[in-house]
Amino acid sequence: MASAAPTGGDLSRLRQLNSLAVFGALRADGPLTLTAVAERTGLSRPSTKEVVDQLVELGWVVEVAPSAGTIGRPARRYRFRAEAGHIAGIDLGVHTVRAVVSDLDGTVLAETRQAVTPATPNDERIAAAERAVEGCLTMADLAREDLWTVAAGTTGIVDTAGVVRICAGIPGWAGVDLTARLGELFSCPIEIENDARLAALAERERGVAKGIRDAVFVHAGRRTGAALVIGGEVHRGFGGAAGEIGLHPVAHWERSADHIHDCPAVPAGVPKRDAARHTFAAARDGDPAALAAVDRYCDELAVGVSAMVMTLDPELVVLGGGFSPAGDVLLPRLRARLEEVCLRMPELRASTLGEECVAVGAVGRAVARLDAKHFGLTPGGIAPAR
Amino acid sequence: MASAAPTGGDLSRLRQLNSLAVFGALRADGPLTLTAVAERTGLSRPSTKEVVDQLVELGWVVEVAPSAGTIGRPARRYRFRAEAGHIAGIDLGVHTVRAVVSDLDGTVLAETRQAVTPATPNDERIAAAERAVEGCLTMADLAREDLWTVAAGTTGIVDTAGVVRICAGIPGWAGVDLTARLGELFSCPIEIENDARLAALAERERGVAKGIRDAVFVHAGRRTGAALVIGGEVHRGFGGAAGEIGLHPVAHWERSADHIHDCPAVPAGVPKRDAARHTFAAARDGDPAALAAVDRYCDELAVGVSAMVMTLDPELVVLGGGFSPAGDVLLPRLRARLEEVCLRMPELRASTLGEECVAVGAVGRAVARLDAKHFGLTPGGIAPAR
Repeated sequence: MASAAPTGGDLSRLRQLNSLAVFGALRADGPLTLTAVAERTGLSRPSTKEVVDQLVELGWVVEVAPSAGTIGRPARRYRFRAEAGHIAGIDLGVHTVRAVVSDLDGTVLAETRQAVTPATPNDERIAAAERAVEGCLTMADLAREDLWTVAAGTTGIVDTAGVVRICAGIPGWAGVDLTARLGELFSCPIEIENDARLAALAERERGVAKGIRDAVFVHAGRRTGAALVIGGEVHRGFGGAAGEIGLHPVAHWERSADHIHDCPAVPAGVPKRDAARHTFAAARDGDPAALAAVDRYCDELAVGVSAMVMTLDPELVVLGGGFSPAGDVLLPRLRARLEEVCLRMPELRASTLGEECVAVGAVGRAVARLDAKHFGLTPGGIAPAR
Repeated sequence: MASAAPTGGDLSRLRQLNSLAVFGALRADGPLTLTAVAERTGLSRPSTKEVVDQLVELGWVVEVAPSAGTIGRPARRYRFRAEAGHIAGIDLGVHTVRAVVSDLDGTVLAETRQAVTPATPNDERIAAAERAVEGCLTMADLAREDLWTVAAGTTGIVDTAGVVRICAGIPGWAGVDLTARLGELFSCPIEIENDARLAALAERERGVAKGIRDAVFVHAGRRTGAALVIGGEVHRGFGGAAGEIGLHPVAHWERSADHIHDCPAVPAGVPKRDAARHTFAAARDGDPAALAAVDRYCDELAVGVSAMVMTLDPELVVLGGGFSPAGDVLLPRLRARLEEVCLRMPELRASTLGEECVAVGAVGRAVARLDAKHFGLTPGGIAPAR
């Protein structure tokens, strides 16, 4: 059973029950037995049972089936019903539009992608996003009404209202009110953020930056971008322009990926979206042209990364985005360049989240917002606008 | 009456009195009448009077004399006795060693400076600091025993134990344990921090960055450095190396100030410490050599500042340090350079704290630490090491 977002009445009942402590324990640490919930909340066991029963009735909590082969009568265990609601995460990219649909734990149930180009008109890019979400919903046997939030990331500077302010990658994209455009398609709340920032959030929540306070995230792929984690939160900047070091004239990341895509080691006829894989494979085999291309790419990447590192002195640099599976090729070269200039070397790690990182980050942000809004749980994520 | 730092017994008595609320109100908002203290603390007026009387007896609080010409019998007013203790702030610089002595409000009572050179041996630089503090104490009619904290800033990367780890400006300074060296001279706690970071703290606490959450501070003077304020706190970085963008090869701030000091507009025989004033004055008069020198200086400054701005997207950039009185000359040029590259322009302001900014920041940091340690007041300042 999937269900619509909670109504005011449901929430008021949830609060009346004084059951947020019980709910929070099951949300964070479930499945749990009633005894374990009582221990965590300080409530008596009878009170705990009463609250859990009512949460089950409301559809927030469900009993877990005992493991097969259990001997005797096992204690009943309960968990948060993450399937009570669903979230769509969208990556409105320059060359690809991706979508994922997740449950309220952020567990991805379906993912789709649609090819676009920088020249794709705005209406068609939005329509591609709609089709991508629709495909996910079909695969997960869900309807639009089951979505509690649609969260999207896109390239460029996005204001807090969800309007694209500056966008170098997609002509005509600046000025688009994404909250309004997606709001015409989906009746749930819409959230919009910069793509690299959502990918950084995904790393912080479930990737290689988990538990790290200060990190620089490099979004390396067909486009090159960056985002910062400071004090455990993704840093927006005063006007949402933090991490845009790639547009600095000495970094000029706008065309850096061309070194990888236009490398002579890429066989003729290979489509652009597969070109990088060939270049990295050739570099692993010692192909001189591929090695030269990788070197030039890392040289340009290192200028911007070292500027961020020498500004912030982070604990960690994450190489994420579509090129992250080539961490074995890229990280040693990036490390060597950084060691030449940085006063203190941060650790370097390649992301393991892959190309879905933006859509997964979008979902993660929506989950954190929902937890904060409905359940009073501590919000994680991106520091609020000032 | 000056007095030594509070003993455990004094503090325990202060806490037993449950008087921290009263103390906090007078510390933050005094002078106040008993009625005003009672309103702020929620205590009854008789309880408030009892607590205040005991704070007076302990020497933490004092009655304020009524203004001359007051008609009738005015209500008694009380204030925190900021003169109960004192703090020395030291700027262990490359060319100058400065000291200030302040009361517990951070109000500066005396200031001194001693000329040194990059070649001054370590022992002599430490001895110059000792003489500078001694001079302040003499002027303020105080003894070393009256100091509750000695806080010092120095150029380079300083670890959390107060050992200089890397220092480009002073040969042989790396490796010096400043906590130990100053601890041989003063029996109170010693605190050591990077100089630009303390100057940024001074701007955040009492300068042009007051109330700003995210700011870039440029320490512009005979040396060029930078520090960051993020989320209202000065940012150290994971290894204390945040803000060292000036050592990036494309910024290379190491010799930037030479453009100003070695300008042909400086009359022969002018000592180096007065050279900048002549260059800036000549630039104001339209002297072509001075204008060219200022342009070159601003070009180099802008590379590092724009890299920091495009990383963090701060609300404000502060031009501080010895060159800050030339904000009228420097800021329009710096602004023009930044406008060419930055996606979003921060506000630019020149510091009004002048050359004492590092020593004043050192005192401010010590005050915040003392408030936190002794009185349980919220610490401000520099984010703790991780």
